[in-house]
Amino acid sequence: MSRDICVYNEFLTDAHRARIEQAARETGFTVHFFDNAAQAEEFVRGDCEIIYSYLPSLVQAAPHLKWFCCASAGVDLFCQDDSLFQNPDCLLTNSSGAYGTAISEHILMVTLMLLRRYYPTYAQLVREHNWKRNLPIRSILGSRITVVGTGDLGTSFARRAKALGAGTIIGVNRSGRQPDPCYDKIVPTAQLDSVLPETEILVLCLPQTPDTVGILSRERIALLGPESIVVNVGRGSAVDQEALAEALNEGRIFGAALDVVTPEPLPADHSLWETKNLLLTPHCSGDTALGWTCDKLVEMFCEDLFNYAAGRPMKHLVDRKRGY
Amino acid sequence: MSRDICVYNEFLTDAHRARIEQAARETGFTVHFFDNAAQAEEFVRGDCEIIYSYLPSLVQAAPHLKWFCCASAGVDLFCQDDSLFQNPDCLLTNSSGAYGTAISEHILMVTLMLLRRYYPTYAQLVREHNWKRNLPIRSILGSRITVVGTGDLGTSFARRAKALGAGTIIGVNRSGRQPDPCYDKIVPTAQLDSVLPETEILVLCLPQTPDTVGILSRERIALLGPESIVVNVGRGSAVDQEALAEALNEGRIFGAALDVVTPEPLPADHSLWETKNLLLTPHCSGDTALGWTCDKLVEMFCEDLFNYAAGRPMKHLVDRKRGY
Repeated sequence: MSRDICVYNEFLTDAHRARIEQAARETGFTVHFFDNAAQAEEFVRGDCEIIYSYLPSLVQAAPHLKWFCCASAGVDLFCQDDSLFQNPDCLLTNSSGAYGTAISEHILMVTLMLLRRYYPTYAQLVREHNWKRNLPIRSILGSRITVVGTGDLGTSFARRAKALGAGTIIGVNRSGRQPDPCYDKIVPTAQLDSVLPETEILVLCLPQTPDTVGILSRERIALLGPESIVVNVGRGSAVDQEALAEALNEGRIFGAALDVVTPEPLPADHSLWETKNLLLTPHCSGDTALGWTCDKLVEMFCEDLFNYAAGRPMKHLVDRKRGY
Repeated sequence: MSRDICVYNEFLTDAHRARIEQAARETGFTVHFFDNAAQAEEFVRGDCEIIYSYLPSLVQAAPHLKWFCCASAGVDLFCQDDSLFQNPDCLLTNSSGAYGTAISEHILMVTLMLLRRYYPTYAQLVREHNWKRNLPIRSILGSRITVVGTGDLGTSFARRAKALGAGTIIGVNRSGRQPDPCYDKIVPTAQLDSVLPETEILVLCLPQTPDTVGILSRERIALLGPESIVVNVGRGSAVDQEALAEALNEGRIFGAALDVVTPEPLPADHSLWETKNLLLTPHCSGDTALGWTCDKLVEMFCEDLFNYAAGRPMKHLVDRKRGY
């Protein structure tokens, strides 16, 4: 009997498919690539053992699924509702580790755009053909940064900020444990309030879990100073959007850059589009269009395929209860 | 007889003035601060020995000037015409070394904005409230960078790019000498043509001298590939603007970011404002509004004031014939 892998991911190049086919051959699997979600869904209704994709509908359709490898880092869609998996023992792995490069460069870009007043001021002046200069600008050099969530995304950014001369980098995580020497200090989430008043650049890199929803609450936004910047690249649910928009519109904080919002896609008539000093991007910070990201994703799937086939622990296994 | 210093620089804070006054006292000078250029000009018509400013009109007005310290890094305005100085032996120093931080962060910002298609694409989509994502993006990681001009600006950027994982960084300078280990290779200016076809990110950080005017010529722009990006933070005269605009409008290169142009200020009806994939900024990359830059400027002036008073060689002396 053949053991089947269903693959549905738009980003794959021919080289990526060849790499996956080779790994499947070496582990005794047959791989089936789909460009059409409905056809993939039809296929997995049979005896499919492994799916490599990002679509909840495929998981839901597969009665004999033993392993779902998600091509995203965030797997909240697969952890909210246990009934999604027909097989309660199905393994779930994520792709945390592939997005750090792309997303940390996004964080750098938006932080500089806000600190240097490219957005909104210079962008607006240039659109008006107005050669006005010498507005006050700020630097990453010497800045006080707080990174909430010290996984791949947060730490990829923190390392880069350190290399650019950031003054103090505080990491915030559940355990209070030091994951990387680039952090000057780690504080547990329970002490987040104490670091907010001194924070100039607050970066949220959190998965969506019951603990992280609403973590940047109205009360915490009120603790931030008038020079502070908020950047969110995790999930939109981490932020009280209404309170953030009020703080921005009233000039109580300096600026914000949201790549993730609630809901997505953001409706065209949503007030967030026109919030003052808010740099919005359409959840593009970790785009799989970045070649390095795609190569890394495929490498990570193949690595865990060998682990799975050999009965070894899987490197990117997610605790479905915990959500990451 | 009192020995006088005239200071006319808008960026000075009270702390900076106090620091300069202290250095003047310790070296036997009397310092005069001006907020009004006409009053400063009137003052220097007397017996003023030192001017710390950036205005050619002050130099021209001062018959007994022995040292002009320019608060800019580029001193082309003071080297083009020898008759500007009434005293032919007047010393000229510049402020090269103070702008590397601010300008290298500008280069990073605009490079990421172009590579990640923030400018022009995502910026435009967001203005239209259009949540469209997954456009192809690129990274500094693994990129092939060429930095023309390996002084403070070029090397400050090259070090940062190296820390962010750039693939290859080639430095181009007159001598072909290696100024910093962050460069993978140094080639002399005479061999610039040979590195252009492989260059993805071309960064121009040159002072304006007879050798650098027009260095990015029409012929050299034609050597760049369709994925290449041009960033200029030195002087606008380095680039054949018409040829660059044609290459951009015809899609022969990927994008460009010009912080310096010819002429400045750019007239409101100039075609450069609307050139395709051209990210313009109004010569703000090295803004003295950045506190770090201003502190460094004052420190550099005071350092050379002590050198001048003691008859030691000055650290930031410019060869007026050579232009830097």
